[in-house]
Amino acid sequence: MTASIITIGDEILIGQIVDTNSSYIAKALDKIGIETVEMLSISDKEEHILSTFKNLQNKVDVIVITGGLGPTKDDITKKTFCTYFDDTLINDAAVLSHVTELIEGIYKRPISQINKDQALVPSKAKVLFNKVGTAPGMWMEKENTIFISLPGVPYEMKYLVDEEIIPSLVQKFERPYILHKTMMTYGKGESLLAEEIEDWENNLPLFIKLAYLPSPGRVRLRLTARGKDEQALKDAIQIEVEKLQKLIPNDIVGFDDDEPIERIIGNLLKERNLTLSAAESCTGGKIAQLITSIPGASNYFKGSMVTYATEAKINLLDISEDLIEKYSVVSKEIVQEMALSVQRILKTDYAIATTGNAGPSKGESDVEIGTVFISVVTPKQVIIEEFNFGQPREKVIDRSVNKALEILYKEILKN
Amino acid sequence: MTASIITIGDEILIGQIVDTNSSYIAKALDKIGIETVEMLSISDKEEHILSTFKNLQNKVDVIVITGGLGPTKDDITKKTFCTYFDDTLINDAAVLSHVTELIEGIYKRPISQINKDQALVPSKAKVLFNKVGTAPGMWMEKENTIFISLPGVPYEMKYLVDEEIIPSLVQKFERPYILHKTMMTYGKGESLLAEEIEDWENNLPLFIKLAYLPSPGRVRLRLTARGKDEQALKDAIQIEVEKLQKLIPNDIVGFDDDEPIERIIGNLLKERNLTLSAAESCTGGKIAQLITSIPGASNYFKGSMVTYATEAKINLLDISEDLIEKYSVVSKEIVQEMALSVQRILKTDYAIATTGNAGPSKGESDVEIGTVFISVVTPKQVIIEEFNFGQPREKVIDRSVNKALEILYKEILKN
Repeated sequence: MTASIITIGDEILIGQIVDTNSSYIAKALDKIGIETVEMLSISDKEEHILSTFKNLQNKVDVIVITGGLGPTKDDITKKTFCTYFDDTLINDAAVLSHVTELIEGIYKRPISQINKDQALVPSKAKVLFNKVGTAPGMWMEKENTIFISLPGVPYEMKYLVDEEIIPSLVQKFERPYILHKTMMTYGKGESLLAEEIEDWENNLPLFIKLAYLPSPGRVRLRLTARGKDEQALKDAIQIEVEKLQKLIPNDIVGFDDDEPIERIIGNLLKERNLTLSAAESCTGGKIAQLITSIPGASNYFKGSMVTYATEAKINLLDISEDLIEKYSVVSKEIVQEMALSVQRILKTDYAIATTGNAGPSKGESDVEIGTVFISVVTPKQVIIEEFNFGQPREKVIDRSVNKALEILYKEILKN
Repeated sequence: MTASIITIGDEILIGQIVDTNSSYIAKALDKIGIETVEMLSISDKEEHILSTFKNLQNKVDVIVITGGLGPTKDDITKKTFCTYFDDTLINDAAVLSHVTELIEGIYKRPISQINKDQALVPSKAKVLFNKVGTAPGMWMEKENTIFISLPGVPYEMKYLVDEEIIPSLVQKFERPYILHKTMMTYGKGESLLAEEIEDWENNLPLFIKLAYLPSPGRVRLRLTARGKDEQALKDAIQIEVEKLQKLIPNDIVGFDDDEPIERIIGNLLKERNLTLSAAESCTGGKIAQLITSIPGASNYFKGSMVTYATEAKINLLDISEDLIEKYSVVSKEIVQEMALSVQRILKTDYAIATTGNAGPSKGESDVEIGTVFISVVTPKQVIIEEFNFGQPREKVIDRSVNKALEILYKEILKN
């Protein structure tokens, strides 16, 4: 089974917003064995939408469309559906009563005609009831292709994908198996890694494919297997993973894409009843933000001192002015003090600290732009490392965060 | 002039990574008046790439392709270029010497065959020299279409777009004018806003188009004008903007998409020589992270205390245990104390504080999930507001951050 995902909206084509919806939908389809063969972003002009529909008609089994369903004049998906399916809009009583309740009951505003028009749907459509917003989704069929239209607001799209689309597709179709296994590696670049695992890669079975997914400071290795026998696929992947673990035991830090390192660290800390704190300078709160993006982080994360200014390091972290004068704010000595201080003040088992110059120009220290010091303190020892992540600023911040979490992860495992 | 942007890579089609490159490229093309008519993400199978090239050949002027240029086996763009252009790979001496210097000189590793192969390029290609990475870009032409291939690593892609592609396109072609003006509004929903500006919208000149771009807590209104006379377009847009400002003076908080609110706030603080600090609970460091993502933030941002655990509020912010016991950590009283404390400790003019329950389950407080208190203290007064942002967790955090920055922005403007 194959699918195409279409995003409608000029805001994507002029680069004003990044389309994250297609990725979410593709992942959900992939999990139930439906292969997305193409993603498209097109303008919200009716003729463009119609020609795209015609091109894809009967070439894929499912087309999922997001965008163009809002209450304003630039949203034209519903009208275009009527043209393509030779249909007219009718009022859906259940949707109207839901919209009325949301606007009048929750938002406490009088309902307007624009709001009421959201309850208009093509008469042949199966309505996908949107509990979390005002625009309903639509499911329509023509010859061998299903057309599904969803609102572009991510929370509403996600709700309809999870609660309506995926369950309906699972019920309606038999699908082949597509299994993925992703291994996260930290520290080595793509080509160095590729050399070390070349023999293994060359000997993979033909139904298993390897992909390298590099990002700053880490490379994910993804194995994909396709076939009819789920257990056979699982076994074959497991064998390859075990071979790879023997080859590069120190580089693999985790499995599965749904497990970012902040979640892996969180699980480890929770299991072992350990706590964490941070003192961030150049990472500006991003370590705290990642750690607290995981529900339940309050069980192990006490807090972070984002001591951006030198005076904050002095006032909040009790670091002596003399020490800063002597070594500069971006130094091994200060990053160690920061980590030890926050560990002591917040009484945690582990602590992370970062200080550096993310650029683009030099700040309160004279060190080279891109220089970063990271310290991780554990119940047993203090680790300090120095890096130069070059430029741009965004890359320096991202790599510092990834590196700090990598060091922390490896230390927790050792203890 | 029209363009298509193609992203090559299975990792996008299975939803493992979000494509941010296309958006960056579209924005850069749009700025020089080249209209992106379609974005596509396709698999890294040669036949799929070739059929996509054939479909777009002579239908658009420029095709920009990212991905598939890395050193590993799954990267096949160069080979596919050779097939499509009936060409062969040759060694580029300048690229080889650059790769060698990068690997041996900077990364301090012996150079491998995989690294050396990055210097292979199709003989007919104009090589786009990639100073910030090892994979060169390529520029090839066939009949009426230019094919540009760029590496998928965002920093490398951005470098080549800014330094090579845009200057070359500007030199080579005369282009029409496309002007955009985006107004950011905070606080009102899309349909309420649409009602208030309906008459104005209906009376826009035909060459000006309006789009609504809603995201949690804010709606951007984008005007787009197309034509041959740049000054006439600018004047016409200016007239419409002024009309709109009179209609909704309190809702518009800023202009232009390249100006996120954290930058607008930063500029205001810098101009007026004012300082800011934060005490974050439910936002977990995201306010600090946004503020410090702007270069030069150290001029006005002193730091943030991410006091995630109750004991951190007590230890770091000096809030009395009795007060927390009496009112609970998620309350008007505590958020005010947090803001006043951090303002005092870091000696800043302004301070923001957040406390809330982001869910999905109840934490150290009994308040309803989704409840958030925000406080902004200014040199003159203390503002406290209570919200319920519902669920999911991600939305509660995002809306809290946006709301806090909105309140801060409006207060700075008043003073």
